[in-house]
Amino acid sequence: MPRYRLLVEYDGRPYCGFQAQATLPSVQGAIEAAVKAFSGQALRIAAAGRTDTGVHATGQVVHVDLERDWPAQTVMNALNAHLTQEAVSILACEIAEGDWHARFSANERRYLYRILNRPAPPALDKGRVWHIKKPLDAEAMHEAAQALVGLHDFTTFRDMHCQAKSPLKTLDVARVWREGEVVCLAFEARSFLHRQVRSMTGTLAEVGIGRWSAQDVKDALEAKDRTACGPVAPADGLYLVGVGYGD
Amino acid sequence: MPRYRLLVEYDGRPYCGFQAQATLPSVQGAIEAAVKAFSGQALRIAAAGRTDTGVHATGQVVHVDLERDWPAQTVMNALNAHLTQEAVSILACEIAEGDWHARFSANERRYLYRILNRPAPPALDKGRVWHIKKPLDAEAMHEAAQALVGLHDFTTFRDMHCQAKSPLKTLDVARVWREGEVVCLAFEARSFLHRQVRSMTGTLAEVGIGRWSAQDVKDALEAKDRTACGPVAPADGLYLVGVGYGD
Repeated sequence: MPRYRLLVEYDGRPYCGFQAQATLPSVQGAIEAAVKAFSGQALRIAAAGRTDTGVHATGQVVHVDLERDWPAQTVMNALNAHLTQEAVSILACEIAEGDWHARFSANERRYLYRILNRPAPPALDKGRVWHIKKPLDAEAMHEAAQALVGLHDFTTFRDMHCQAKSPLKTLDVARVWREGEVVCLAFEARSFLHRQVRSMTGTLAEVGIGRWSAQDVKDALEAKDRTACGPVAPADGLYLVGVGYGD
Repeated sequence: MPRYRLLVEYDGRPYCGFQAQATLPSVQGAIEAAVKAFSGQALRIAAAGRTDTGVHATGQVVHVDLERDWPAQTVMNALNAHLTQEAVSILACEIAEGDWHARFSANERRYLYRILNRPAPPALDKGRVWHIKKPLDAEAMHEAAQALVGLHDFTTFRDMHCQAKSPLKTLDVARVWREGEVVCLAFEARSFLHRQVRSMTGTLAEVGIGRWSAQDVKDALEAKDRTACGPVAPADGLYLVGVGYGD
Protein backbone atom coordinates (compact mmCIF):
# COMPACT_ATOMS: atom_id res chain seq x y z
CA MET A 1 0.00 0.00 0.00
CA PRO A 2 2.18 2.89 -1.24
CA ARG A 3 1.90 6.35 0.24
CA TYR A 4 1.76 9.20 -2.28
CA ARG A 5 3.08 12.62 -1.35
CA LEU A 6 1.28 15.42 -3.18
CA LEU A 7 2.23 19.08 -3.56
CA VAL A 8 -1.01 21.04 -3.83
CA GLU A 9 -2.01 24.51 -5.01
CA TYR A 10 -5.47 25.93 -4.37
CA ASP A 11 -7.55 29.05 -4.44
CA GLY A 12 -9.21 29.17 -1.02
CA ARG A 13 -12.21 31.25 -2.09
CA PRO A 14 -14.67 28.52 -3.06
CA TYR A 15 -13.91 26.40 0.02
CA CYS A 16 -14.83 26.36 3.70
CA GLY A 17 -11.14 25.69 4.35
CA PHE A 18 -8.88 22.69 3.90
CA GLN A 19 -10.67 20.38 6.30
CA ALA A 20 -13.69 18.37 5.17
CA GLN A 21 -17.04 19.41 6.61
CA ALA A 22 -20.29 17.57 6.19
CA THR A 23 -22.17 19.90 3.89
CA LEU A 24 -19.66 22.50 2.72
CA PRO A 25 -17.15 22.28 -0.12
CA SER A 26 -13.61 21.83 1.19
CA VAL A 27 -10.19 21.32 -0.36
CA GLN A 28 -9.91 17.96 1.38
CA GLY A 29 -13.32 16.94 0.04
CA ALA A 30 -12.31 17.95 -3.50
CA ILE A 31 -9.10 15.90 -3.39
CA GLU A 32 -10.78 12.90 -1.75
CA ALA A 33 -13.48 12.96 -4.43
CA ALA A 34 -10.77 12.98 -7.11
CA VAL A 35 -9.00 10.06 -5.38
CA LYS A 36 -12.26 8.13 -5.32
CA ALA A 37 -13.05 8.89 -8.96
CA PHE A 38 -9.59 7.72 -9.96
CA SER A 39 -9.00 4.72 -7.67
CA GLY A 40 -12.50 3.70 -6.70
CA GLN A 41 -11.46 3.91 -3.05
CA ALA A 42 -13.04 6.17 -0.42
CA LEU A 43 -9.87 7.31 1.35
CA ARG A 44 -8.95 9.97 3.86
CA ILE A 45 -6.02 12.22 3.07
CA ALA A 46 -3.67 13.89 5.58
CA ALA A 47 -2.28 17.42 5.13
CA ALA A 48 0.54 19.49 6.60
CA GLY A 49 -1.62 22.52 7.27
CA ARG A 50 -5.33 22.87 7.89
CA THR A 51 -5.90 26.24 6.28
CA ASP A 52 -8.97 28.32 7.13
CA THR A 53 -11.86 29.42 4.92
CA GLY A 54 -10.59 31.56 2.04
CA VAL A 55 -6.88 30.90 2.72
CA HIS A 56 -4.87 29.90 -0.36
CA ALA A 57 -1.95 27.54 -0.91
CA THR A 58 0.82 27.26 -3.44
CA GLY A 59 2.73 24.64 -1.43
CA GLN A 60 0.35 22.55 0.68
CA VAL A 61 1.58 18.97 1.21
CA VAL A 62 -0.85 16.06 1.41
CA HIS A 63 -0.57 12.29 1.47
CA VAL A 64 -2.84 9.49 0.44
CA ASP A 65 -2.35 5.72 0.75
CA LEU A 66 -3.49 3.94 -2.39
CA GLU A 67 -4.08 0.21 -2.63
CA ARG A 68 -2.47 -0.15 -6.00
CA ASP A 69 1.10 0.72 -6.89
CA TRP A 70 0.57 3.34 -9.61
CA PRO A 71 3.39 5.38 -11.12
CA ALA A 72 3.47 8.76 -9.33
CA GLN A 73 3.03 10.62 -12.63
CA THR A 74 -0.14 8.63 -13.36
CA VAL A 75 -1.60 9.56 -9.97
CA MET A 76 -0.85 13.25 -10.50
CA ASN A 77 -2.34 13.37 -14.00
CA ALA A 78 -5.40 11.35 -13.00
CA LEU A 79 -6.14 13.54 -9.97
CA ASN A 80 -5.73 16.71 -12.02
CA ALA A 81 -8.07 15.29 -14.67
CA HIS A 82 -10.70 14.81 -11.94
CA LEU A 83 -10.06 18.27 -10.45
CA THR A 84 -10.74 20.36 -13.56
CA GLN A 85 -13.98 21.74 -12.08
CA GLU A 86 -12.24 22.60 -8.78
CA ALA A 87 -9.79 25.37 -7.85
CA VAL A 88 -7.26 22.73 -6.77
CA SER A 89 -4.22 21.48 -8.67
CA ILE A 90 -1.66 18.76 -7.90
CA LEU A 91 1.72 20.30 -8.70
CA ALA A 92 3.88 17.25 -7.97
CA CYS A 93 3.52 13.66 -6.80
CA GLU A 94 6.03 11.14 -5.52
CA ILE A 95 5.99 7.88 -3.56
CA ALA A 96 6.91 8.59 0.06
CA GLU A 97 9.65 6.67 1.83
CA GLY A 98 9.36 4.80 5.13
CA ASP A 99 6.90 6.17 7.66
CA TRP A 100 6.87 9.69 6.29
CA HIS A 101 3.64 11.54 7.19
CA ALA A 102 2.42 14.76 5.54
CA ARG A 103 1.42 16.25 8.88
CA PHE A 104 3.51 14.61 11.59
CA SER A 105 6.82 14.60 9.70
CA ALA A 106 6.57 18.29 8.85
CA ASN A 107 8.99 20.44 10.80
CA GLU A 108 8.42 23.76 9.06
CA ARG A 109 5.46 25.68 7.67
CA ARG A 110 5.99 28.75 5.50
CA TYR A 111 3.27 31.36 5.02
CA LEU A 112 3.15 34.43 2.83
CA TYR A 113 0.74 37.30 3.36
CA ARG A 114 0.08 39.80 0.54
CA ILE A 115 -1.28 43.30 1.14
CA LEU A 116 -2.27 45.41 -1.86
CA ASN A 117 -1.27 48.89 -0.78
CA ARG A 118 -2.76 51.50 -3.11
CA PRO A 119 -5.79 53.80 -3.18
CA ALA A 120 -7.79 51.67 -5.68
CA PRO A 121 -9.35 48.35 -4.70
CA PRO A 122 -8.16 45.19 -6.47
CA ALA A 123 -10.03 44.06 -9.58
CA LEU A 124 -7.75 41.26 -10.76
CA ASP A 125 -6.61 40.18 -7.27
CA LYS A 126 -9.95 40.49 -5.48
CA GLY A 127 -10.05 37.84 -2.73
CA ARG A 128 -6.33 37.20 -3.14
CA VAL A 129 -4.91 40.21 -1.30
CA TRP A 130 -5.83 42.37 1.67
CA HIS A 131 -6.48 45.89 0.41
CA ILE A 132 -5.10 48.73 2.54
CA LYS A 133 -5.42 52.25 1.12
CA LYS A 134 -3.18 54.11 3.54
CA PRO A 135 0.55 53.98 2.65
CA LEU A 136 2.35 51.31 4.67
CA ASP A 137 5.90 51.66 5.97
CA ALA A 138 7.18 48.15 5.19
CA GLU A 139 10.53 48.79 6.85
CA ALA A 140 8.88 49.79 10.13
CA MET A 141 6.71 46.66 9.90
CA HIS A 142 9.79 44.51 9.35
CA GLU A 143 11.56 46.05 12.30
CA ALA A 144 8.56 45.60 14.60
CA ALA A 145 8.13 42.00 13.42
CA GLN A 146 11.53 41.04 14.79
CA ALA A 147 10.12 41.21 18.34
CA LEU A 148 7.96 38.21 17.42
CA VAL A 149 10.85 36.01 16.29
CA GLY A 150 11.95 33.31 18.73
CA LEU A 151 10.25 31.25 21.43
CA HIS A 152 7.28 33.10 22.89
CA ASP A 153 3.91 32.66 24.52
CA PHE A 154 1.73 33.75 21.56
CA THR A 155 -1.55 33.96 23.50
CA THR A 156 -2.07 37.52 22.16
CA PHE A 157 -1.86 36.29 18.56
CA ARG A 158 -3.99 33.20 18.95
CA ASP A 159 -7.66 32.79 18.10
CA MET A 160 -10.05 32.27 21.01
CA HIS A 161 -11.01 28.91 19.48
CA CYS A 162 -7.44 27.67 19.04
CA GLN A 163 -7.23 24.05 20.18
CA ALA A 164 -3.45 23.81 20.63
CA LYS A 165 -2.50 22.66 24.14
CA SER A 166 0.19 25.27 24.59
CA PRO A 167 0.49 28.87 23.37
CA LEU A 168 4.28 28.46 23.27
CA LYS A 169 5.68 28.50 19.74
CA THR A 170 9.00 29.34 18.12
CA LEU A 171 8.74 31.74 15.22
CA ASP A 172 11.82 31.20 13.06
CA VAL A 173 11.37 33.92 10.46
CA ALA A 174 9.33 37.12 10.14
CA ARG A 175 10.14 39.26 7.11
CA VAL A 176 8.29 42.22 5.64
CA TRP A 177 9.16 43.88 2.33
CA ARG A 178 7.57 45.85 -0.47
CA GLU A 179 7.23 44.74 -4.10
CA GLY A 180 5.73 47.74 -5.88
CA GLU A 181 2.13 48.12 -4.73
CA VAL A 182 2.26 44.89 -2.71
CA VAL A 183 3.61 44.57 0.82
CA CYS A 184 4.65 40.97 1.53
CA LEU A 185 4.97 39.32 4.93
CA ALA A 186 6.73 35.96 5.26
CA PHE A 187 6.53 33.80 8.39
CA GLU A 188 8.24 30.47 9.08
CA ALA A 189 7.84 28.16 12.08
CA ARG A 190 7.60 24.47 12.94
CA SER A 191 3.91 25.13 13.50
CA PHE A 192 1.52 28.00 14.11
CA LEU A 193 -1.41 28.61 16.42
CA HIS A 194 -4.89 29.14 14.96
CA ARG A 195 -5.03 32.53 13.13
CA GLN A 196 -1.53 33.37 14.38
CA VAL A 197 -0.27 34.63 11.00
CA ARG A 198 -3.37 36.75 10.40
CA SER A 199 -3.21 38.12 13.97
CA MET A 200 0.45 39.05 13.60
CA THR A 201 -0.17 40.54 10.14
CA GLY A 202 -3.08 42.68 11.28
CA THR A 203 -1.04 43.95 14.21
CA LEU A 204 1.98 44.73 12.04
CA ALA A 205 -0.27 46.60 9.58
CA GLU A 206 -1.06 48.96 12.48
CA VAL A 207 2.67 49.67 12.64
CA GLY A 208 2.72 50.12 8.86
CA ILE A 209 0.10 52.87 8.93
CA GLY A 210 1.77 54.52 11.92
CA ARG A 211 -0.83 53.85 14.62
CA TRP A 212 1.36 51.42 16.56
CA SER A 213 5.08 51.54 17.39
CA ALA A 214 7.47 48.57 17.46
CA GLN A 215 7.29 48.85 21.25
CA ASP A 216 3.50 48.48 21.13
CA VAL A 217 3.92 45.16 19.31
CA LYS A 218 6.41 44.03 21.93
CA ASP A 219 4.05 45.09 24.71
CA ALA A 220 1.14 43.26 23.04
CA LEU A 221 3.19 40.06 22.86
CA GLU A 222 4.25 40.36 26.47
CA ALA A 223 0.69 41.02 27.61
CA LYS A 224 -0.21 37.40 26.70
CA ASP A 225 -3.74 38.64 26.28
CA ARG A 226 -5.90 38.15 23.19
CA THR A 227 -7.52 41.55 23.65
CA ALA A 228 -4.09 43.18 23.24
CA CYS A 229 -3.93 41.98 19.62
CA GLY A 230 -4.44 44.38 16.71
CA PRO A 231 -7.18 43.69 14.15
CA VAL A 232 -6.98 40.24 12.56
CA ALA A 233 -6.10 40.38 8.85
CA PRO A 234 -8.63 38.77 6.47
CA ALA A 235 -8.06 35.35 4.91
CA ASP A 236 -7.83 36.83 1.39
CA GLY A 237 -4.10 37.64 1.46
CA LEU A 238 -2.83 34.47 3.16
CA TYR A 239 -0.96 31.68 1.32
CA LEU A 240 0.57 28.46 2.64
CA VAL A 241 3.62 28.54 0.37
CA GLY A 242 5.69 25.65 1.63
CA VAL A 243 6.21 22.84 4.11
CA GLY A 244 9.59 21.59 5.27
CA TYR A 245 10.43 18.03 6.28
CA GLY A 246 14.10 18.49 7.13
CA ASP A 247 14.78 16.55 3.95
CA MET B 1 -17.98 69.98 -19.13
CA PRO B 2 -14.68 68.55 -17.92
CA ARG B 3 -13.28 65.34 -19.43
CA TYR B 4 -12.02 62.80 -16.90
CA ARG B 5 -9.21 60.44 -17.84
CA LEU B 6 -9.44 57.11 -16.00
CA LEU B 7 -6.84 54.36 -15.65
CA VAL B 8 -8.76 51.08 -15.35
CA GLU B 9 -7.95 47.55 -14.17
CA TYR B 10 -10.32 44.65 -14.78
CA ASP B 11 -10.64 40.91 -14.69
CA GLY B 12 -12.06 40.01 -18.09
CA ARG B 13 -13.68 36.75 -17.01
CA PRO B 14 -17.16 37.96 -16.02
CA TYR B 15 -17.53 40.18 -19.10
CA CYS B 16 -18.38 39.76 -22.77
CA GLY B 17 -15.50 42.14 -23.44
CA PHE B 18 -14.94 45.85 -23.01
CA GLN B 19 -17.63 47.02 -25.40
CA ALA B 20 -21.23 47.33 -24.24
CA GLN B 21 -23.68 44.80 -25.64
CA ALA B 22 -27.43 44.85 -25.22
CA THR B 23 -27.93 41.91 -22.88
CA LEU B 24 -24.46 40.83 -21.74
CA PRO B 25 -22.35 42.25 -18.92
CA SER B 26 -19.48 44.34 -20.25
CA VAL B 27 -16.70 46.43 -18.74
CA GLN B 28 -18.09 49.50 -20.47
CA GLY B 29 -21.54 48.75 -19.10
CA ALA B 30 -20.16 48.38 -15.57
CA ILE B 31 -18.32 51.71 -15.72
CA GLU B 32 -21.25 53.53 -17.34
CA ALA B 33 -23.57 52.18 -14.63
CA ALA B 34 -21.17 53.48 -11.96
CA VAL B 35 -21.03 56.87 -13.71
CA LYS B 36 -24.80 57.01 -13.76
CA ALA B 37 -25.11 55.98 -10.10
CA PHE B 38 -22.62 58.67 -9.14
CA SER B 39 -23.57 61.57 -11.40
CA GLY B 40 -27.15 60.78 -12.36
CA GLN B 41 -26.13 61.09 -16.02
CA ALA B 42 -26.47 58.34 -18.64
CA LEU B 43 -23.16 58.88 -20.45
CA ARG B 44 -21.08 56.97 -22.97
CA ILE B 45 -17.44 56.42 -22.20
CA ALA B 46 -14.60 56.06 -24.71
CA ALA B 47 -11.67 53.64 -24.29
CA ALA B 48 -8.23 53.18 -25.79
CA GLY B 49 -8.66 49.46 -26.44
CA ARG B 50 -11.77 47.39 -27.04
CA THR B 51 -10.62 44.16 -25.43
CA ASP B 52 -12.33 40.86 -26.25
CA THR B 53 -14.32 38.50 -24.01
CA GLY B 54 -12.15 37.26 -21.15
CA VAL B 55 -9.23 39.60 -21.85
CA HIS B 56 -7.92 41.45 -18.79
CA ALA B 57 -6.48 44.92 -18.26
CA THR B 58 -4.16 46.51 -15.78
CA GLY B 59 -3.79 49.72 -17.78
CA GLN B 60 -6.88 50.41 -19.89
CA VAL B 61 -7.53 54.13 -20.39
CA VAL B 62 -11.04 55.52 -20.58
CA HIS B 63 -12.60 58.96 -20.62
CA VAL B 64 -15.94 60.34 -19.59
CA ASP B 65 -17.32 63.85 -19.90
CA LEU B 66 -19.16 64.88 -16.75
CA GLU B 67 -21.46 67.87 -16.49
CA ARG B 68 -20.20 68.96 -13.10
CA ASP B 69 -16.65 69.93 -12.26
CA TRP B 70 -15.82 67.39 -9.54
CA PRO B 71 -12.33 66.96 -8.06
CA ALA B 72 -10.66 64.01 -9.86
CA GLN B 73 -10.14 62.19 -6.57
CA THR B 74 -13.86 62.40 -5.81
CA VAL B 75 -14.73 60.90 -9.18
CA MET B 76 -12.29 58.02 -8.67
CA ASN B 77 -13.52 57.20 -5.17
CA ALA B 78 -17.18 57.50 -6.12
CA LEU B 79 -16.81 55.23 -9.16
CA ASN B 80 -14.91 52.64 -7.13
CA ALA B 81 -17.61 52.77 -4.47
CA HIS B 82 -20.17 51.91 -7.15
CA LEU B 83 -17.96 49.19 -8.66
CA THR B 84 -17.52 47.03 -5.55
CA GLN B 85 -19.71 44.27 -6.99
CA GLU B 86 -17.81 44.34 -10.29
CA ALA B 87 -14.34 43.09 -11.26
CA VAL B 88 -13.40 46.61 -12.35
CA SER B 89 -11.32 49.17 -10.48
CA ILE B 90 -10.39 52.78 -11.27
CA LEU B 91 -6.66 53.07 -10.50
CA ALA B 92 -6.25 56.76 -11.25
CA CYS B 93 -8.27 59.73 -12.40
CA GLU B 94 -7.32 63.14 -13.70
CA ILE B 95 -8.91 65.97 -15.64
CA ALA B 96 -7.80 65.80 -19.27
CA GLU B 97 -6.37 68.81 -21.07
CA GLY B 98 -7.52 70.29 -24.37
CA ASP B 99 -9.05 67.92 -26.88
CA TRP B 100 -7.37 64.80 -25.50
CA HIS B 101 -9.34 61.63 -26.36
CA ALA B 102 -8.83 58.21 -24.72
CA ARG B 103 -9.02 56.42 -28.07
CA PHE B 104 -8.01 58.88 -30.77
CA SER B 105 -5.08 60.47 -28.90
CA ALA B 106 -3.52 57.10 -28.06
CA ASN B 107 -0.37 56.39 -30.06
CA GLU B 108 0.74 53.20 -28.32
CA ARG B 109 -0.95 50.10 -26.90
CA ARG B 110 1.02 47.65 -24.74
CA TYR B 111 -0.13 44.06 -24.25
CA LEU B 112 1.27 41.31 -22.07
CA TYR B 113 0.52 37.64 -22.60
CA ARG B 114 1.16 35.13 -19.78
CA ILE B 115 1.65 31.41 -20.37
CA LEU B 116 1.82 29.09 -17.37
CA ASN B 117 4.38 26.51 -18.47
CA ARG B 118 4.34 23.52 -16.11
CA PRO B 119 2.78 20.05 -16.02
CA ALA B 120 0.04 20.96 -13.50
CA PRO B 121 -2.93 23.13 -14.47
CA PRO B 122 -3.40 26.47 -12.70
CA ALA B 123 -5.54 26.57 -9.55
CA LEU B 124 -4.88 30.14 -8.41
CA ASP B 125 -4.45 31.62 -11.89
CA LYS B 126 -7.25 29.76 -13.65
CA GLY B 127 -8.63 32.00 -16.40
CA ARG B 128 -5.68 34.35 -16.02
CA VAL B 129 -3.00 32.39 -17.88
CA TRP B 130 -2.79 30.04 -20.84
CA HIS B 131 -1.65 26.65 -19.59
CA ILE B 132 0.89 24.81 -21.76
CA LYS B 133 2.32 21.58 -20.34
CA LYS B 134 5.18 21.01 -22.78
CA PRO B 135 8.37 22.92 -21.94
CA LEU B 136 8.66 26.13 -23.96
CA ASP B 137 11.93 27.52 -25.28
CA ALA B 138 11.37 31.20 -24.50
CA GLU B 139 14.60 32.26 -26.20
CA ALA B 140 13.60 30.58 -29.45
CA MET B 141 10.20 32.29 -29.20
CA HIS B 142 11.87 35.66 -28.68
CA GLU B 143 14.14 35.16 -31.66
CA ALA B 144 11.26 34.09 -33.91
CA ALA B 145 9.17 37.05 -32.71
CA GLN B 146 11.68 39.52 -34.12
CA ALA B 147 10.50 38.69 -37.65
CA LEU B 148 7.17 40.28 -36.70
CA VAL B 149 8.67 43.61 -35.61
CA GLY B 150 8.32 46.48 -38.04
CA LEU B 151 5.80 47.50 -40.72
CA HIS B 152 4.08 44.44 -42.17
CA ASP B 153 0.91 43.21 -43.76
CA PHE B 154 -0.45 41.21 -40.79
CA THR B 155 -3.24 39.44 -42.70
CA THR B 156 -1.98 36.08 -41.37
CA PHE B 157 -2.36 37.26 -37.76
CA ARG B 158 -5.74 38.96 -38.14
CA ASP B 159 -9.13 37.54 -37.25
CA MET B 160 -11.49 36.87 -40.15
CA HIS B 161 -13.94 39.35 -38.59
CA CYS B 162 -11.40 42.14 -38.16
CA GLN B 163 -12.96 45.41 -39.30
CA ALA B 164 -9.78 47.44 -39.79
CA LYS B 165 -9.53 48.91 -43.29
CA SER B 166 -5.90 47.90 -43.78
CA PRO B 167 -3.89 44.87 -42.57
CA LEU B 168 -0.77 47.06 -42.49
CA LYS B 169 0.51 47.72 -38.98
CA THR B 170 3.83 48.57 -37.40
CA LEU B 171 4.78 46.34 -34.49
CA ASP B 172 7.25 48.29 -32.37
CA VAL B 173 8.17 45.69 -29.76
CA ALA B 174 7.90 41.90 -29.43
CA ARG B 175 9.69 40.43 -26.44
CA VAL B 176 9.47 36.94 -24.94
CA TRP B 177 11.05 35.91 -21.66
CA ARG B 178 10.66 33.41 -18.85
CA GLU B 179 9.86 34.24 -15.19
CA GLY B 180 10.01 30.89 -13.42
CA GLU B 181 7.01 28.84 -14.55
CA VAL B 182 5.57 31.73 -16.54
CA VAL B 183 6.56 32.66 -20.09
CA CYS B 184 5.72 36.30 -20.80
CA LEU B 185 5.20 37.90 -24.20
CA ALA B 186 5.12 41.70 -24.54
CA PHE B 187 3.88 43.49 -27.66
CA GLU B 188 3.77 47.22 -28.35
CA ALA B 189 2.29 49.04 -31.32
CA ARG B 190 0.31 52.17 -32.17
CA SER B 191 -2.62 49.82 -32.71
CA PHE B 192 -3.33 46.15 -33.31
CA LEU B 193 -5.62 44.20 -35.60
CA HIS B 194 -8.42 42.08 -34.11
CA ARG B 195 -6.91 39.04 -32.32
CA GLN B 196 -3.44 39.98 -33.59
CA VAL B 197 -1.71 39.49 -30.22
CA ARG B 198 -3.41 36.13 -29.60
CA SER B 199 -2.65 35.01 -33.16
CA MET B 200 1.03 35.96 -32.84
CA THR B 201 1.22 34.35 -29.38
CA GLY B 202 -0.32 31.06 -30.49
CA THR B 203 2.06 30.94 -33.44
CA LEU B 204 5.11 31.71 -31.30
CA ALA B 205 4.05 28.98 -28.83
CA GLU B 206 4.46 26.52 -31.73
CA VAL B 207 8.07 27.69 -31.92
CA GLY B 208 8.38 27.33 -28.14
CA ILE B 209 7.39 23.67 -28.20
CA GLY B 210 9.63 23.02 -31.21
CA ARG B 211 6.98 22.37 -33.86
CA TRP B 212 7.72 25.53 -35.83
CA SER B 213 11.04 27.20 -36.69
CA ALA B 214 11.70 30.94 -36.79
CA GLN B 215 11.66 30.62 -40.57
CA ASP B 216 8.15 29.12 -40.41
CA VAL B 217 6.94 32.25 -38.60
CA LYS B 218 8.56 34.45 -41.24
CA ASP B 219 6.97 32.37 -43.99
CA ALA B 220 3.57 32.57 -42.29
CA LEU B 221 3.83 36.38 -42.11
CA GLU B 222 4.88 36.60 -45.74
CA ALA B 223 2.05 34.31 -46.85
CA LYS B 224 -0.44 37.09 -45.91
CA ASP B 225 -2.96 34.29 -45.50
CA ARG B 226 -5.06 33.70 -42.38
CA THR B 227 -4.85 29.94 -42.83
CA ALA B 228 -1.03 30.14 -42.47
CA CYS B 229 -1.46 31.29 -38.82
CA GLY B 230 -0.75 28.94 -35.93
CA PRO B 231 -3.47 28.22 -33.35
CA VAL B 232 -4.94 31.35 -31.74
CA ALA B 233 -4.05 31.66 -28.03
CA PRO B 234 -7.01 31.85 -25.61
CA ALA B 235 -8.15 35.13 -24.04
CA ASP B 236 -7.19 33.96 -20.54
CA GLY B 237 -3.54 35.03 -20.64
CA LEU B 238 -3.97 38.41 -22.33
CA TYR B 239 -3.65 41.76 -20.52
CA LEU B 240 -3.86 45.31 -21.84
CA VAL B 241 -1.12 46.72 -19.60
CA GLY B 242 -0.72 50.24 -20.86
CA VAL B 243 -1.62 52.96 -23.34
CA GLY B 244 0.73 55.68 -24.52
CA TYR B 245 -0.23 59.21 -25.53
CA GLY B 246 3.18 60.54 -26.45
CA ASP B 247 2.97 62.56 -23.23
